[in-house]
Amino acid sequence: MRWGTWIPTVRVVAMSLEAEFVDWLKEQVGRHEALCVGIGDDGAVVHWGDADKHGGEAVVVADLLAEGTHFVLDVLGPRRVGRKALAVNLSDLAAMAAIPVAATVSVLLPRMNAQWIARELFEGLLPLAREFDVAIAGGDTNTWNGPLVIDVTAWGRLTPSGPLLRSAAQVGDRILVTGRLGGSILGRHADFQPRIDEALALRTEYGIAAGMDISDGLALDLSRLATASGVGAILDVDHVPVHDDAHRLSADTSQGPSALQRALADGEDFELLVTAPPDVAATLTARSPFAVPLTDVGEIVAAAGLSERRGDGSLRPLNPTGYLHEAEDRTP
Amino acid sequence: MRWGTWIPTVRVVAMSLEAEFVDWLKEQVGRHEALCVGIGDDGAVVHWGDADKHGGEAVVVADLLAEGTHFVLDVLGPRRVGRKALAVNLSDLAAMAAIPVAATVSVLLPRMNAQWIARELFEGLLPLAREFDVAIAGGDTNTWNGPLVIDVTAWGRLTPSGPLLRSAAQVGDRILVTGRLGGSILGRHADFQPRIDEALALRTEYGIAAGMDISDGLALDLSRLATASGVGAILDVDHVPVHDDAHRLSADTSQGPSALQRALADGEDFELLVTAPPDVAATLTARSPFAVPLTDVGEIVAAAGLSERRGDGSLRPLNPTGYLHEAEDRTP
Repeated sequence: MRWGTWIPTVRVVAMSLEAEFVDWLKEQVGRHEALCVGIGDDGAVVHWGDADKHGGEAVVVADLLAEGTHFVLDVLGPRRVGRKALAVNLSDLAAMAAIPVAATVSVLLPRMNAQWIARELFEGLLPLAREFDVAIAGGDTNTWNGPLVIDVTAWGRLTPSGPLLRSAAQVGDRILVTGRLGGSILGRHADFQPRIDEALALRTEYGIAAGMDISDGLALDLSRLATASGVGAILDVDHVPVHDDAHRLSADTSQGPSALQRALADGEDFELLVTAPPDVAATLTARSPFAVPLTDVGEIVAAAGLSERRGDGSLRPLNPTGYLHEAEDRTP
Repeated sequence: MRWGTWIPTVRVVAMSLEAEFVDWLKEQVGRHEALCVGIGDDGAVVHWGDADKHGGEAVVVADLLAEGTHFVLDVLGPRRVGRKALAVNLSDLAAMAAIPVAATVSVLLPRMNAQWIARELFEGLLPLAREFDVAIAGGDTNTWNGPLVIDVTAWGRLTPSGPLLRSAAQVGDRILVTGRLGGSILGRHADFQPRIDEALALRTEYGIAAGMDISDGLALDLSRLATASGVGAILDVDHVPVHDDAHRLSADTSQGPSALQRALADGEDFELLVTAPPDVAATLTARSPFAVPLTDVGEIVAAAGLSERRGDGSLRPLNPTGYLHEAEDRTP
């Protein structure tokens, strides 16, 4: 579940709508006894009746992708759109350390080629569903005179360790990220691997409690995690693992953001951002238990706000939306 | 969950796409061990782990409404759209005899007036959510350069009696419907009351096992229920409870469908269609336990297909799509 999503050309507009609207909605929705974790995290944890009455706890996430807003159909093709629509939801489940169980898929199909598009969507989606043992539990198919829209809702179950939460970061924690960041537009934004296995291992084997997925860029998402936890964060920017794609994009243009700026702000990395006590973080980075790298990129501090620290130890405030504005100004 | 939905002007096109696509999809999706009831009923029943492992069983439904295809925003207004988007999902949960628990709401908002529309949607949706104690567990908000789209996924839990199923009708059963049918376009298609309480009472107190909600018209939905159960049905058309709205619409035009035809084929009644052994049906119609009428409209028979029986006892085949074609020819 994310209220709002990555809309490059109208990012800030959409986000300010989102922030104000989500605040209003939170107030309207109120506190429902069935919601253990509500609006504001990557997913909701819903308690829905006692176990002896067929009840249980579910983590619920939802992400909608619309042609022209979230993707260009002619560029991405319906098969990759279908895969991505499920993958972003699985990334949200990973962000909550939930084991995927099932998903529903609702689509609005352009009348032209509706059947072909529908099949391609599922040809892309179903292999990923099988890989993570997700039951496709239905949905709603419609044809219309508009562009392609696909909305996936997925849910999972928690391990006995419970969820990863944005609000659980502690002062003194180290900040860790999986993988390498930036330049996802070259393809990884659609073809990424949801970090389900890594999230479950971090939660259940290493006791990590605070985390989320990086969908809007490390800087912005880290500031969200820090805010949700009532703490601040220092990012050791020289340690941020910059993806080759970010280097490639920055090399190709004389102007524009640096590779590091891309790693901080491009978004759609769909890697994990977690915080861990220093000893656990040291064990993890020494052991490197995953196929993808796990990198220590900074620390959680008491003072609110986000700072960047250079190799020489100098600190300066890091404005996550500053990166967004820079990026936006370059959007054609 | 309905694969496909009510699209008046392209009904048959959409349905033939749907039928072929759903068959293909069923084959692709296969039989997942987590799915107790899969694609083809009003909802899916998902078993997702043992109760002692935070697992449980959920009934899941999803319905998407798009401006211009399912509603005219200037006519209905965003508040009624929001209410309807949740109500159709609650009707699907009623069709499965599930107790509503939670819902996610994903929206695509037209850039113009996005914030106002978003609030109006929820002003319409939230009172209904409170009435049925549904937790709003999140969703995804987006602004775009297109019309309003709202997709709601809702889930509920089963009573110990289990679900109502389309496939559980038995030869000799009587066919019962709640409420009165036809002419919902005058307003009830949006303002109807989901028959949750009635469905739960029918399932748990009267042991009724077969049922669905009437979303595409009694004739078509009864034929679906009969097909799913491997039986046929005789509809006593003189007994069909025709809504005043259907009479009103038929009185207003010299041509066009009769009030009865409207009751059989207009769709979006969102009443319940169930079948019951004769003694249970007699008890129910004599007792009339609900605020809405419960009417015996025919019987389940062994021979496949749908027939209509007049007061004089004469039988003739009833082609549910015949009604649709008639209705469509009149669509401007």
